[in-house]
Amino acid sequence: MVLEKVNSPEDLKALDWDELLALAEEIRSEIIRVTAQNGGHLASSLGAVELILALHRVFDSPRDKILFDVGHQAYAHKLVTGRKHLFHTLRKEGGISGFTKVSESPHDAITVGHASTSLANALGMAIARDLQGEDHHVVAVIGDGALTGGMALAALNKIGELGKRMLIVLNDNEMSISENVGGLNRYFKELQIRKWVQDMEKLGRHILEQISPRLFSLVDRAKEAAKLVLHQENPFYAWGIRYVGPVDGHDLKGLVHILQHLKELEGPTLLHVVTKKGKGYKVAEADPIYWHGPPGFDPKKPEKVSKGYTWSQAFGDAVTELAHMEPRLFVITPAMREGSGLVRYAQEHPERFLDVGICEDVAVTTAAGMALKGMKPIVAIYSTFLQRAYDQVIHDVAIESLPVVFAVDRAGLVGADGATHHGVFDLAYLRTVPNVEIAAPKDALELRAMLKQALARPNPVFIRYARDNVEKAPEGVWPEIPWGRWEVLKEGTEVYLLAFGKTLAYALEAAGDDPRVGVVNARFLKPLDREMLKELARYKLLTVEDHQKMGGFGSAVLEALNEMGLKAEVRVLALPDRFFEHGAIPSLHRQAGIDPEGIRKALAELGIAPVHERA
Amino acid sequence: MVLEKVNSPEDLKALDWDELLALAEEIRSEIIRVTAQNGGHLASSLGAVELILALHRVFDSPRDKILFDVGHQAYAHKLVTGRKHLFHTLRKEGGISGFTKVSESPHDAITVGHASTSLANALGMAIARDLQGEDHHVVAVIGDGALTGGMALAALNKIGELGKRMLIVLNDNEMSISENVGGLNRYFKELQIRKWVQDMEKLGRHILEQISPRLFSLVDRAKEAAKLVLHQENPFYAWGIRYVGPVDGHDLKGLVHILQHLKELEGPTLLHVVTKKGKGYKVAEADPIYWHGPPGFDPKKPEKVSKGYTWSQAFGDAVTELAHMEPRLFVITPAMREGSGLVRYAQEHPERFLDVGICEDVAVTTAAGMALKGMKPIVAIYSTFLQRAYDQVIHDVAIESLPVVFAVDRAGLVGADGATHHGVFDLAYLRTVPNVEIAAPKDALELRAMLKQALARPNPVFIRYARDNVEKAPEGVWPEIPWGRWEVLKEGTEVYLLAFGKTLAYALEAAGDDPRVGVVNARFLKPLDREMLKELARYKLLTVEDHQKMGGFGSAVLEALNEMGLKAEVRVLALPDRFFEHGAIPSLHRQAGIDPEGIRKALAELGIAPVHERA
Repeated sequence: MVLEKVNSPEDLKALDWDELLALAEEIRSEIIRVTAQNGGHLASSLGAVELILALHRVFDSPRDKILFDVGHQAYAHKLVTGRKHLFHTLRKEGGISGFTKVSESPHDAITVGHASTSLANALGMAIARDLQGEDHHVVAVIGDGALTGGMALAALNKIGELGKRMLIVLNDNEMSISENVGGLNRYFKELQIRKWVQDMEKLGRHILEQISPRLFSLVDRAKEAAKLVLHQENPFYAWGIRYVGPVDGHDLKGLVHILQHLKELEGPTLLHVVTKKGKGYKVAEADPIYWHGPPGFDPKKPEKVSKGYTWSQAFGDAVTELAHMEPRLFVITPAMREGSGLVRYAQEHPERFLDVGICEDVAVTTAAGMALKGMKPIVAIYSTFLQRAYDQVIHDVAIESLPVVFAVDRAGLVGADGATHHGVFDLAYLRTVPNVEIAAPKDALELRAMLKQALARPNPVFIRYARDNVEKAPEGVWPEIPWGRWEVLKEGTEVYLLAFGKTLAYALEAAGDDPRVGVVNARFLKPLDREMLKELARYKLLTVEDHQKMGGFGSAVLEALNEMGLKAEVRVLALPDRFFEHGAIPSLHRQAGIDPEGIRKALAELGIAPVHERA
Repeated sequence: MVLEKVNSPEDLKALDWDELLALAEEIRSEIIRVTAQNGGHLASSLGAVELILALHRVFDSPRDKILFDVGHQAYAHKLVTGRKHLFHTLRKEGGISGFTKVSESPHDAITVGHASTSLANALGMAIARDLQGEDHHVVAVIGDGALTGGMALAALNKIGELGKRMLIVLNDNEMSISENVGGLNRYFKELQIRKWVQDMEKLGRHILEQISPRLFSLVDRAKEAAKLVLHQENPFYAWGIRYVGPVDGHDLKGLVHILQHLKELEGPTLLHVVTKKGKGYKVAEADPIYWHGPPGFDPKKPEKVSKGYTWSQAFGDAVTELAHMEPRLFVITPAMREGSGLVRYAQEHPERFLDVGICEDVAVTTAAGMALKGMKPIVAIYSTFLQRAYDQVIHDVAIESLPVVFAVDRAGLVGADGATHHGVFDLAYLRTVPNVEIAAPKDALELRAMLKQALARPNPVFIRYARDNVEKAPEGVWPEIPWGRWEVLKEGTEVYLLAFGKTLAYALEAAGDDPRVGVVNARFLKPLDREMLKELARYKLLTVEDHQKMGGFGSAVLEALNEMGLKAEVRVLALPDRFFEHGAIPSLHRQAGIDPEGIRKALAELGIAPVHERA
């Protein structure tokens, strides 16, 4: 095993070519083995093995900064930077993260999980380097999907202007999480099919080998050489960024060769590398969308498994049906067709479906434009990614109170994806915005009711649900709920549990059949059901939510009680003021004290000691 | 007066050329006259007069949708769309908005104030139009500065892919609010200085005149024609967007002519128009940065007036000094050098100053990259624009608790800029984020203390101050304050006013010398001074802040009291759950009930009736 010899990137430099090529295969096997056990980002990590080995062979991490955009393609990087013995703990509680993480290793240049951030980070590092009189390299590896994110494009614009020495590796695998979208991508595709580009590339390499790299780096010469090597219709030139490529991202030797040359260049350079998602693992190559982030599987006999019926699918089924009833309905996703349960919808209503790519801000404001034209747009988005469109929610949707519906998926703690992906701030940042309404259904049937009724509201509505399974609701059934009203699920004599969203099940479990403990499905956070709250203020109250304590549902209850001048005894169960790492969701909920046990403990502190179960 | 005849865009179509040219001059005079009285966005509105007249001559608003990015250049649009009789109320309370606003006129296609949103809005409208079987035009007018915003670039990418019929007018005035930045802008500048581009442009017009526009619209022909007309090195082609220009944005006849042709084209087209900010008003042409948004002036004898010493300048002076003491300090602004008081800083420390352009997300993440390299970055940003970098605050800064300092300017209600610009959500969306600290200084001296001490904190710190004047603090003086501790400014026997930031002055005024009323400078919202709060909980409490009530400072106080099990009588004075329009700040504060009178009223409701002033 070559991997046994590799404890740091330094060790890579001592390997001969045969060893290096063997190492690539060993790493592939290890990625497949551990991902099969733990689940994880398989296809993208398999696609980046040679690229990562080449980068670590040529550059000197951690002195040189290698930034992986999104960070989910970096398993090979973890394996060669001293974490191979921990790799089996990938994405497990207490184990290593599925993304790069500054606090995990000095080789992880950035903490990441969301797309399109690497270029601005790299720019900051390059500026700092030059000010500090250092001369290390800064290399950002960014996928073609992430490059269509506005923040990456804007950073590229600034990078071109400042001209700092920096290498951008465009890892072009023709697919972001769903599939690629956007004119820039079409441009890449055209590039790849042009024979003359390949010829030019060969010529380019030849020239790079012949001329002195130092000479090449002089500005005028570079321009001349570039014109020779490369074609003219290239957006990167317009931006002041040298473009090299496309090159084969699985040709390890070729990559090392070209990177050694690029290392010598001044100014910003973009190397366009073409890779294949899932490379080396047949099923993943054939269906990289499923194998993007599969749950565990049998590596010998890899098969798709159903993850059960999820909230996402419940949403997808509901909107698919609704769209047959409401011709103005339109669904927008920022690159999350599969994740948001929209595969069926996109098939049945292709003309009313738009994937804008990884740009959440564009998703929200495009919906605003549609609403201004009388459509009924629904933005399907994960809670954590809605953070990226916060201003658009306020400025483009809420000020004019446009009727846009937001299906906020993956709300609360999301498990193995960890700190970057938990959707635990949305209630605080949304409820402060005027004109918006915020709801959370207790089951798939209530989700259907909320969605249908939300489409008739004259204002923005946010419907929030968790990363979890849910019992499937029957098709064609559309119950109606009293909008803005809570629901008493169980009467109590001493205390009421007010639960918002996912934690309602915990509340019911904790209450059991204790007659002292009532349970309320507090399904609307905004408007809050003040009438019922006033009634309930005669009892002790315990609010429960899967969200930060600061500014969340419990905080809204405290505000309302205070405004009404009611002095109920209230206890707020929510997430403490810290970031949660990755781990199994139930375990994270236990840590946070919002699970049934935590609720029982809080009840006890309110003087409701547990009773023995009665027959 | 031609303007007298113009009550709607229809009337423009009946004018002859001489009248139209005269109208442009009349509109200029009117813009100067009213801006001189009310203050406003003078330079950009003067620069867009001919462009707006040409658009309304050729297109049919409101059937055709004309979207003005940012919306502050649209005064001429307001004047020709039935609002000339209201124009004298511009930016005044109850008057018309300084931006376009859907609820103000059917001719205002979008409600706007922040940059870079028009393209995504336009895309949404174009999609809706086609689905609805309509055939109107969608025209987005976007400045070169706004086009460097990531969200505009990402939308452009999607527009290129979808190929919907749409006209993008790039209003290139070589300057956004400060000055232009970015490689894309350099590219435009190069275009403008190339003689052959001008020649090509003439040729292009000739061709447009000769060939049938319908024929021109056929895809292949368009490609051929485009190659003739235009140069090759154009980023828009790579994006699948037809590029036409540059053309003279003050040649009304030429603009009308070319727009009439472009109206016939299928697919997305970008028309590159070159205009001059401040056109037709000498002082504004000469110094468009000052005359971007001047306060009132004498139109006959326009002179710069000092707006007094502002919090922005207090910040600018403090960081300029600090940078001499702290070599790692670095200041980043998203296109707000002047607004953020950084002119002096940029002069004294040019190598440690970065204007990233209108991309707040890039500003924050570039700071993160610098912090990772051991620098001490300060992001100078308006509260309302920080909304655009919310995810970057969480994901790139807070998760690893990077020591980035945020100077959050224009916090609270900002006055004449209105709903899009009030900075009244920041406390709610920031305090829910772990690892961050939030402070508000009572005066310029305390700002200096907070800034200096913030640079030594191991975590992100947000320092919030208002759009207001402040007494200048002496140079070289750096007091130290106990971090995280409130300050009792006045003892009281019955009630304590807890005031955060700007409202502290109101609290002091309202308290007067009433011995019953104490006043606390609650300068830290996070961490909250629980120790002092516990002490004060023996009294009645009245919190005051210039922020939404939901989730703000008062909410944090309620949470803390509840957690500590303290049952103080608390009243929260803050902004009600609605958007505030434009108006004078004191008047808006009165409306919201957070001014001295509102505080006195709240005190009375708490049983502290006003006392007569004593000698």
